Formats: sequence, structure tokens, C-alpha cells
Amino acid sequence: MNRLDGEPGGFSGHLPQQPALTDGPVLIIGTGLLGASIGLTLSGRGVDVYLRDQSSAALAIARDVGAGRAEAPEVQPTLVVVATPPDTTDEIVANVLLEFEQAVVTDVASVKSVVLSALQANPSLEPVHLQRYVGSHPMAGGERSGAIAADADLFIGRPWVISAHPGSAHQATSAIRNLALDVEALPVAMSAEEHDRAVALVSHVPQVLASLVAARLIGGGPAALSLAGQGLRDVTRIAASNPSLWAAILAGNAAAVRDQLRLVAADLHELEVALDRADQDGPLAPGAIATLAQHIAAGNEGVARIPGKHGGVPKLYREVVVLIPDTAGELGRLFSEIGEIGVNIEDFRMEHSPGQKVGMGYVSIRPSETDRLVEALEMRDWRVVVGPVN
Amino acid sequence: MNRLDGEPGGFSGHLPQQPALTDGPVLIIGTGLLGASIGLTLSGRGVDVYLRDQSSAALAIARDVGAGRAEAPEVQPTLVVVATPPDTTDEIVANVLLEFEQAVVTDVASVKSVVLSALQANPSLEPVHLQRYVGSHPMAGGERSGAIAADADLFIGRPWVISAHPGSAHQATSAIRNLALDVEALPVAMSAEEHDRAVALVSHVPQVLASLVAARLIGGGPAALSLAGQGLRDVTRIAASNPSLWAAILAGNAAAVRDQLRLVAADLHELEVALDRADQDGPLAPGAIATLAQHIAAGNEGVARIPGKHGGVPKLYREVVVLIPDTAGELGRLFSEIGEIGVNIEDFRMEHSPGQKVGMGYVSIRPSETDRLVEALEMRDWRVVVGPVN
Repeated sequence: MNRLDGEPGGFSGHLPQQPALTDGPVLIIGTGLLGASIGLTLSGRGVDVYLRDQSSAALAIARDVGAGRAEAPEVQPTLVVVATPPDTTDEIVANVLLEFEQAVVTDVASVKSVVLSALQANPSLEPVHLQRYVGSHPMAGGERSGAIAADADLFIGRPWVISAHPGSAHQATSAIRNLALDVEALPVAMSAEEHDRAVALVSHVPQVLASLVAARLIGGGPAALSLAGQGLRDVTRIAASNPSLWAAILAGNAAAVRDQLRLVAADLHELEVALDRADQDGPLAPGAIATLAQHIAAGNEGVARIPGKHGGVPKLYREVVVLIPDTAGELGRLFSEIGEIGVNIEDFRMEHSPGQKVGMGYVSIRPSETDRLVEALEMRDWRVVVGPVN
Repeated sequence: MNRLDGEPGGFSGHLPQQPALTDGPVLIIGTGLLGASIGLTLSGRGVDVYLRDQSSAALAIARDVGAGRAEAPEVQPTLVVVATPPDTTDEIVANVLLEFEQAVVTDVASVKSVVLSALQANPSLEPVHLQRYVGSHPMAGGERSGAIAADADLFIGRPWVISAHPGSAHQATSAIRNLALDVEALPVAMSAEEHDRAVALVSHVPQVLASLVAARLIGGGPAALSLAGQGLRDVTRIAASNPSLWAAILAGNAAAVRDQLRLVAADLHELEVALDRADQDGPLAPGAIATLAQHIAAGNEGVARIPGKHGGVPKLYREVVVLIPDTAGELGRLFSEIGEIGVNIEDFRMEHSPGQKVGMGYVSIRPSETDRLVEALEMRDWRVVVGPVN
């Protein structure tokens, strides 16, 4: 959850910070969202961070958001984090293992076996090099990208998979564990294979099917699309993801993803057969409705296995939904009146429905401020709905 | 959005209301979420609402939340709304058309052709009965259910499909249009067939695939599931839907859903072949990665067609990105200064990182205002980036 309009310093100014577990200097290669966010967090905790990126513009942005210094480290880094696109990862990791003979090296690619296999097959690398490599995968980021979206809180409470291989030195593994702890992530130890099977299930297959559902919409007319509701928006949100990045991820985890997609295809075939029966012999045709219900029920069972009812993210804020008339200055008036009321806005988002006379402004505030804000807004004739804690 | 703190009447308490277009009395049969919400809204606007439900407990709850009277109407209703499960709809509509000889009758079932066909095939009904029937489908509700979740604002700005058939009387169609307008929905005229094809695309296929993705999770261990992120949660949220309700919906729209699922299955097969190649011959095998990227790109194209927040259908506004320092009152100052400059904010969203020194405010304005706003903001020492038209 983002903090807006806050007292100076944001959260970090208010909480006593323990010293970082990571000893610098740290070199981060690749200043996209993950690299820049790691740099921002470590820098904020006093670790010496150096940045490297092929793109000098990306590098300058990362420096400007506070992710680290845009220069070569003066002494050997103790830790190098490779945060480049997944299809470039193994080569860069290999080069870094050779370039810095003391550094522990990790990568943050979202596939792990393909990187490890390539390193193990690399003729320039020997076991003495590979013992300093431990793959990792912070499960954070979502659909944002670039250093401009860098977020020192990106990893808080998120799993950070640490995939040591049989040749990893214990000290290397614990350096990566410390890195995860420094950014307040939850370290999860998994082999590269276990990791890849797990992300096929919880990330890659959902991505593929969200994309396929969204692709069907190309065939829909505007009237059909005007019926789109929140369900469709939720299912297809990640369908806006980057095609070349995702093609590399899927190709890098081909076997595990394919195996799961085959199971989905088998289910889909059963549903097609049941729907065919219902189409031929009516909705109550034998075998039709029960098969359909079984698959929906299996979905119930599966979704119930996802930990944390609403995502396990700490429920810090409450959303107050304000109807904002579509006339000049109303949004500005809302903000200035909330300022007068003296309630701090932690986050704000706006939703418009086509053709509607009003937009819905979602104002996130501390739950304890809810009653006061709602009362004061309603006295000023705003139309307000209180949403769930989010 | 639920109203949790509610004075009776929700939003409507604060704004002067025009008189309802619907003349009562209205009889609502079925007091689930939709029936009770319609009753609550109409009652709040002074319409005489009577409720009927097989379950006396559900009826009492609906009465207690203010949806209407739990008794038989004293005079013939002018309008009957059948809001029972979809597999019971046609029979109840038929009975009501015979029971009340003057009433306009609608239903809110989420499939329309199967209801209309059953009514047209019903030997007890004649054209004189059917002319008082107009099917409809308010696109609202989501995963909540029951009168206890009734919400006078459930329909605000949501599409309400009105499916007149060739034998519908004009006066019946306009009565249902008035009903939609009374609950502040957006009436959308569509034939039953058009409706069913549209909802297959925007609602039924997403439901099926969300359920199939979720069903795969049954095979995942706790460690794998601990890696679940927001993407998986979004894709599978609707997989928690009611199996028997959804089985009835899918069976009631069997042909349209099956046709779309066949197209999904064909896409899935292409992906399996591409993944097989990548598994056999490595991630860069010819034909593998491009096929994967094409399907993700098709998803991009499809999701961009959804109207609204990320929809991109009306390319009306330009985003001006303003860097907002993380100090008290800066967001309020930005809004009041944009007000002084005299530019209307069409939309606003904020991205912010607590550890970062600045947040990014995305201000959407008419493209013609861009230069003036940017210049005036820069003169006031704001750091501004002009984004793409969105």
C-alpha cells in the first residue's frame, strides 16, 4: 500500500531500523523494477550500492530515485545481484562470477533450472566459481516496470525463493538469505526444480490462461465489451503483461508449464463435451450439469488453498468510496476538503464507468479515521460508501 | 461495494431524488442479492414493493434490510421482477404472466435465450401473455449473495441488458427501461442471442478458466502455494463462485460457451506445441518463443479493449506525470494549484513508494490543455513528465 501526502520521511522515518545484515558494497546489474527496488531498500539501510545497466537513461533514473550510485564500485563488491531479463541472466551471472573473484552472486530471474543448467554447462566456470552462486526469485513486482516504479517496500512480506544448488557454499546461501531479510521478504528455500514447478502452478499457468481469455475479447464487439464487469477485469489484469518478457519466462520453464497446460486442456475437453450435451439435449441433459458443477467445485477447492484470505497482505487501510460528479473541479474540491477535515490520504485511485455521470474515488485512510471522514464528507454533501479494509 | 456503516437509503439520503419512473406496486419474486437490492432501491425511492420467496427466512431478511413488504400485494402489481435461480426462471415467469393479467414481467437471469425459448414453447402461454414479458440482465452482483448483502447502490453505473423479443409490447420494454433507470443502471438493448454471446465472452468463459486454473492448485504443495501472488489471486478470485448456480448458467448458455472454449483449446494446443519445442531444443528453439510471445501479445490486445480504467477505448486524455515530494500537504497543494491554473482533472491516480522521496501523480487532462498545464506547473517548480495519451 502506498503512502501519500505523508509526514516527511514516510514509514521509514518513523520506525527504528536495525542495521542491515548485508555487508556492502553491493553491485546491482540491471536497474528495472526489481534491481532498483533492491537498491533503494539497501541504500535506505545504509548499504553501499552501485548500479550497472546497459541503458544509461535507465541507470540515471535508478540513481535519481535513490537506488544507488551510477558508477563502478571502488572495491570488489561482496555481493552482486543480477536483475536483468531472464534470457540474459545466465551469461551475465557467468561473467560476474569470473569478474569478481570474491563476490557472492545471485540473480532474480523468475525461472531457476534453466539458469542453473546453463551455468553448470558453461565451460568457463568451475565448481570454485559456482560455489559463490545461489539463484533466487523474489516473488514481487506485478505489472509495474522500470526504476521509476521502484519501491523500497516492494518485498515486504513477499516470498523470496532461495535456490541453492548442491555446490553452493553455505556462506553464499546465507548471504542471499540476509539480502532477503534486509528487504523484509520471507526467505523460502527450494531447489531450482521445485521452484520451477511451483511457479508454473501459481504464476505461469495463470498468466497463460489470463492471456487466452483476454485474446478472445478481440472477437467481441463494443456492445459485448460494454458488459465487462469486475470478474473479467480481475481475470485478465495480468494479460497486460510484457510479451517478450513472458515468452522468455515460459520458454525457460517449458516442461513444467506444458505439463500443467495439458491437464487444463483435459479439463477443458470434459467441459466441451458436457456443454455439447447441454446444447443438444437441453440444460438438464444427463451428465451435463453435474460435470459443469464438478469443475466449478474443483475451482472452489483450489482457490481455498491459496494462503491468506485476501492475499495475506497486512490490512492497514480502509477504502472510503466517494462519488465524484463529472463536473469541473470536483476532484480538486474533494482533495482540498479532505485536507480541511484533517485526514491523511494514504492512497487514492479513481474508477470511471463509461456513460456514468459520476466517477468513484477510492480514498484509502487509516481505519480509525473512517467515521470522522465519512461524517465530515457527508456533511459537505458528498455521497460516500465505506468499503472493506484492504 | 458494500455499505457497512449505513444510514438507510445509502447515497440517496443526501441528494435530492427525482421521483421514480416506475409506478408500483412492484412484486419481486426471489429475495437473493439482486431481488433484495432492486427492492431496497425502489423502496428508498418511494415505490411500493412486495416480496415473495420460497424461503421464509430469506424473505424475513429481505424485509428487515428494507427491500419491501413480506406479504402479498393488495392490488395487482404493475411490474413483477423474477429474481430466482436461472434454472427456475422460465417456469416462474410463465406462472406470473398467467397469475397477473396486467403486469409487465421481467426476469434477471444471466442467460436469456434459454428462458425466452422455454416461454415461447410453453403451451399455456399465448402471444397476449408474452407481450408483457421482457427479459433483462443487470450486470451486477459479483461474488456476494443473499439479501443480507443487499445494496441500494449495487446497480449504479452498471449495464442492465434489456432483451425485448419480437412480440414484446413497447410499453413493457419501456417499463423495464424505467426500472433500470430507477436503480441508476445503464440500459443496454440487446436481443437474447446477442446477450448470450456477449456474456459467454465477458463472463462465462472467464469463469470457466478461472475455475480451471484454481483447480490445478489442488495438486500444489503448501510451499508452492506460499508463492502465490496478487496475479494468481486476481485470476482465481471468481473461482470461489457457487458451483450449482454456475453449472445452471453454463448449461443455459451451452452453445456460446462451448464455441468460445473450443477457440481457447485451439490456442492452448498451439502453446503446448511451442512449449514442447522449447523443452526439447531449448528456450530459443525455432518457432517456440515467437508463438509464446504472439499469444501474450494477443492477450494485451484483448485486455486493451475492455472499457474503463485500463481500457484505452476512448483515447481522450493525456497523462501528465507530476513528481510529488513526500511531505505533508503536497498532494493538496498540487490539486489546488491545478485548480488555480484552471485545468480540469479528468482522472487522477497516484503511485508512490514509502521509501522513495517522491510519488508519481498521474493527472489525466484533455490533450489540448497539456502545454498550458505543463508550463504553469513547471513555473511553480513542479517536476513534470508528459505521458502517452491514454
